[in-house]
Amino acid sequence: MTKTPILDRVAGPADLKTLSDGDLARLADELRVDVIDAVSKTGGHLGSSLGVVELTVGIHAVFDTPRDKVIWDVGHQCYPHKILTGRRDRMGTLRQKDGLSGFTKRAESDYDPFGAAHSSTSISAALGFTVGRDMGMPTGDAVAVIGDGSISAGMAYEALNNAGHEGRRLFVILNDNEMSIAPPTGAMSTYLSNLTRNSPLAPLQAIAEGMEQALPKPMRDGARRAREMVTGVESKGTFFEELGFDYIGPIDGHDMGQVLSVLRGARARATGPVLIHACTVKGKGYAPAEGSADKYHGVSRFDVKTGTQTKGKSNAPSYTSVFGTTLADLAARDPSIVAVTAAMPSGTGVDKMAELFPARVFDVGIAEQHGVTFAAGMAASGLKPFCAIYSTFLQRGYDQVVHDVALQGLPVRFAIDRAGLVGADGATHAGSFDIGYLAALPGMVVMAAADEAELMHMVTTAAGHDSGPIAFRYPRGNGRGVDMPERGEVLEIGKGRMIQEGSDIALLSLGTHLDECERAAALLEAEGLSVSIADARFAKPLDMDLIRDLASRHSVLVTVEQGAMGGFGAMVLQAMAREGLLDQGLKVRTMCLPDRFIDQAGPDEMYADAGLNADGIVETVRAAVGAMPTNVVDLKRS
Amino acid sequence: MTKTPILDRVAGPADLKTLSDGDLARLADELRVDVIDAVSKTGGHLGSSLGVVELTVGIHAVFDTPRDKVIWDVGHQCYPHKILTGRRDRMGTLRQKDGLSGFTKRAESDYDPFGAAHSSTSISAALGFTVGRDMGMPTGDAVAVIGDGSISAGMAYEALNNAGHEGRRLFVILNDNEMSIAPPTGAMSTYLSNLTRNSPLAPLQAIAEGMEQALPKPMRDGARRAREMVTGVESKGTFFEELGFDYIGPIDGHDMGQVLSVLRGARARATGPVLIHACTVKGKGYAPAEGSADKYHGVSRFDVKTGTQTKGKSNAPSYTSVFGTTLADLAARDPSIVAVTAAMPSGTGVDKMAELFPARVFDVGIAEQHGVTFAAGMAASGLKPFCAIYSTFLQRGYDQVVHDVALQGLPVRFAIDRAGLVGADGATHAGSFDIGYLAALPGMVVMAAADEAELMHMVTTAAGHDSGPIAFRYPRGNGRGVDMPERGEVLEIGKGRMIQEGSDIALLSLGTHLDECERAAALLEAEGLSVSIADARFAKPLDMDLIRDLASRHSVLVTVEQGAMGGFGAMVLQAMAREGLLDQGLKVRTMCLPDRFIDQAGPDEMYADAGLNADGIVETVRAAVGAMPTNVVDLKRS
Repeated sequence: MTKTPILDRVAGPADLKTLSDGDLARLADELRVDVIDAVSKTGGHLGSSLGVVELTVGIHAVFDTPRDKVIWDVGHQCYPHKILTGRRDRMGTLRQKDGLSGFTKRAESDYDPFGAAHSSTSISAALGFTVGRDMGMPTGDAVAVIGDGSISAGMAYEALNNAGHEGRRLFVILNDNEMSIAPPTGAMSTYLSNLTRNSPLAPLQAIAEGMEQALPKPMRDGARRAREMVTGVESKGTFFEELGFDYIGPIDGHDMGQVLSVLRGARARATGPVLIHACTVKGKGYAPAEGSADKYHGVSRFDVKTGTQTKGKSNAPSYTSVFGTTLADLAARDPSIVAVTAAMPSGTGVDKMAELFPARVFDVGIAEQHGVTFAAGMAASGLKPFCAIYSTFLQRGYDQVVHDVALQGLPVRFAIDRAGLVGADGATHAGSFDIGYLAALPGMVVMAAADEAELMHMVTTAAGHDSGPIAFRYPRGNGRGVDMPERGEVLEIGKGRMIQEGSDIALLSLGTHLDECERAAALLEAEGLSVSIADARFAKPLDMDLIRDLASRHSVLVTVEQGAMGGFGAMVLQAMAREGLLDQGLKVRTMCLPDRFIDQAGPDEMYADAGLNADGIVETVRAAVGAMPTNVVDLKRS
Repeated sequence: MTKTPILDRVAGPADLKTLSDGDLARLADELRVDVIDAVSKTGGHLGSSLGVVELTVGIHAVFDTPRDKVIWDVGHQCYPHKILTGRRDRMGTLRQKDGLSGFTKRAESDYDPFGAAHSSTSISAALGFTVGRDMGMPTGDAVAVIGDGSISAGMAYEALNNAGHEGRRLFVILNDNEMSIAPPTGAMSTYLSNLTRNSPLAPLQAIAEGMEQALPKPMRDGARRAREMVTGVESKGTFFEELGFDYIGPIDGHDMGQVLSVLRGARARATGPVLIHACTVKGKGYAPAEGSADKYHGVSRFDVKTGTQTKGKSNAPSYTSVFGTTLADLAARDPSIVAVTAAMPSGTGVDKMAELFPARVFDVGIAEQHGVTFAAGMAASGLKPFCAIYSTFLQRGYDQVVHDVALQGLPVRFAIDRAGLVGADGATHAGSFDIGYLAALPGMVVMAAADEAELMHMVTTAAGHDSGPIAFRYPRGNGRGVDMPERGEVLEIGKGRMIQEGSDIALLSLGTHLDECERAAALLEAEGLSVSIADARFAKPLDMDLIRDLASRHSVLVTVEQGAMGGFGAMVLQAMAREGLLDQGLKVRTMCLPDRFIDQAGPDEMYADAGLNADGIVETVRAAVGAMPTNVVDLKRS
């Protein structure tokens, strides 16, 4: 007999309208079982999906999706939503090549009106839909579901501020599980916790006056005056009300009855922006998840009964852990080293330093803009900040990198994890653009590690680089298993290294595709070509001695990087053009990511899709040599 | 007799310590006269500087600068600060070549510990200094002075949130003049106004209960429960207190006595973060400024007695006004066109559309992150949003351009004003990087206008482009005075145009340096060279037919763009390399901004400094041709 009798009869959200409240509660239970079952076979974001099962059922039962637009912030909690919206039979393909995305995605379903993966975008998008609705576009209401970590980002605040000002009918559901990927930090988080802590009613006035008595005299006077004005005029009680929202809550986000009645009431009566504060538990209803420290935020495949996850075996440490260990080691020797993370202490590996020196590691929350400038301020004070942010998220702090760091030449060290294609998280998490957008900045040093030992050298080099900003990028996943030195070396800025000497073809690699270059060289050598390989190490400043040397001694020069056009290869070409090195008939090709977004798959599959691997290098060289006519010239690459 | 007897005796902030409070008040008056006098001769940001005269005197009198760090948010209000900190004799050089910057600047003075020009960075930087202080770096307290417009940005909220959490001794002075460049918008602005509006004391409880009665029943219940918890637990009265700050204010920011006593009290007793809310008047003390709509935010030279500004005469409309007029015209014909600005309605020219269709123009405040994604949401609903943001400020919304717009292929139209070098505002405002960081994005169309008629075509082209995102860039200042068509034409995507046919040299221009190319061509033709000129129009997609044609028929190809390396020229080279067009000995050079920041001067002077003008093009061509040996090859260019 099926474990999911009600769910089995649900083909789409319309079917929810025919169910009793009791059946909707049972449906939620079945949905939870189904999510656990599906993710146990694929891996994925389990904890957050389990936390929103009742909200998902409630929203689809009460609102008229897809005409009404449900926008899941970040989108990693969307598995129950996918199951209810016609994608149940494809849940086995989750996060795999040609399968379902691990996030919401417009291309995948009409029920995903606005895709996500980065946090804190949902309220802005929802406000956009409400304007569309009010201007006669074919769209109904908009509902943003956003977590307590995501709502603490500046972008969400900007959106709340603007939505409150606009005053349009709009629904924001604050999914408060007191736990983003790491425990949320910041004053707002404390504030939210206090909102949900029950305590006896007491008049604000009394509290306020008591507090004022504790203040030093001049402040007390100021505070009292302020309080008189505030309490006399406008203070509405909650932060959200001050921003112009009607506030409902806190409600129990796992009580189907409460969820349904609040959503129905809000939908029936709201005339302006409404914030519904729902308290939920990450991993709800699955004991191993609820009991785990990270609530099974992201899991690999696991055994449903025991919760034991299948861990891939690896012989090499991850790049993240090499960075984390090296940083902690350097921090032990230099008390002026500090680190900044934006809500990703373990994801970035700075947790290793935090264990030893908790007061020198700053988790600023989901706040990349602030995080970068905060690091710049610390650098200006004489400290040595490492700012550890994934490539894709550093885009959030780009102006701060330009305006506060590069323009002022401040020695902030950027540790850029997840460079290049990242696998199951797909296109939204790809670290594609950082080489170009950083190397364009005057005074910036940009490095990419070819292997985990190189990464160790680059962390060490960055620590010692006090004359300006410096960045080093490295990919998701495990290293190559190379021998690790005791300590990192300080690399000479702007100097690459020869890996192998040849005479016909030069491969100039930036980053961990050095191994693909080596594979390609072996294949080409089997065809009788003599291949040089160099590791550029630096995208900026370029090693012009190395480039001149390669240009003068080979007939073909191919650059290889794990990044988009306009990056390393492009700037090599510009530098060569400036010196006239392109004038002599040298055949130069720049291999980079193609000019399209690459959907999720295994990282190797994604690079194969991109034409950016040993086979692609071989084809490019063959076509350039013209020695071996081929009709497989891949024009996708630039 | 001198008008400024006290100021004349002040060589630096140390001298303020010896003055009585009465003399400090008189000093403020003298300083105001001095600022008006100086700016009348140079032009600049007058209104905001006049608004902070007393705060400037107070801060330097009470705090121990430069050991204590004063960080002026945006920095355009720093003229009195510059006068007091040893730069009085150079005020006549303000915003001019080799002169004082119009903003704070680290390279200029020890009293400028953290430069600015973009808004909302000061609290982040100040927090960085406080950490440095607490970790033993040679720095004292940090004081951030931030306006009411700037504090409404998400970045400032992130910083307040983090600073409240950190709990370190830190001073934030909210300079509330109820007026950023445009009147501030957003719920926070309303909230701040209400904080300063005096009204009779009334218990919050009563107000809250009254409000609840007006709510629909389910909300009323929710709101009541929330209120019980809130008022019973933590609500401290002001937004800032909720974020963990001690709040002092509002105070009269022009009452020297109040300013001094509050600063002294705060400095003497603060143990954690303190927010001092000072109300000021933009343009204070100068009647023509106080009486003007924009409070003399940015002025040209003026007559002190009458306030009459010297306006440069121009025969051509500004690019900004051509954009604004064309947009308004298109909006009149297409009701689905909407516009978004981030606190710059007149700066971007969308005020023209707002006059006709106020409900379709959205000023989201200083909130580029939200603004871009809000536009994406509107696009997803079927509207046609124009997102009008200066190049340098679009850096603030880069992740949103990547993640919310480009990845989803949503047709947001980016109107990118202030592309290239901008003159008096200097390096911080240069629009240098947008070509590269936008053209790297799959599916993005990137145009640059060669003149004001071309801009009209590009606005029109963007309006009709529904298949994905599109951007068009254009510079600060006036057009070339070309004949303007009745209406704009829809350009074919990815097609450039030949301007002039020649046979030796090809100049491929993107943007308004087309006129420099024409000047260069005339000079080269006088030397016997035959020059083709093409206007690329598109940085993406590239017109490969045009490029192939130019490559096949000339011996030298030079690209010219008003942007950084890694942009148009770089991507032209990559595309040519891919097709083997570089294999035949064609001499290609890419002229772009040099790899350094260019300080303020006249725009022509800045481009001359950059080697990026007709003379630079001629030199580059001569060197490439090798026909005329020259030892003036400028290696600064790439």
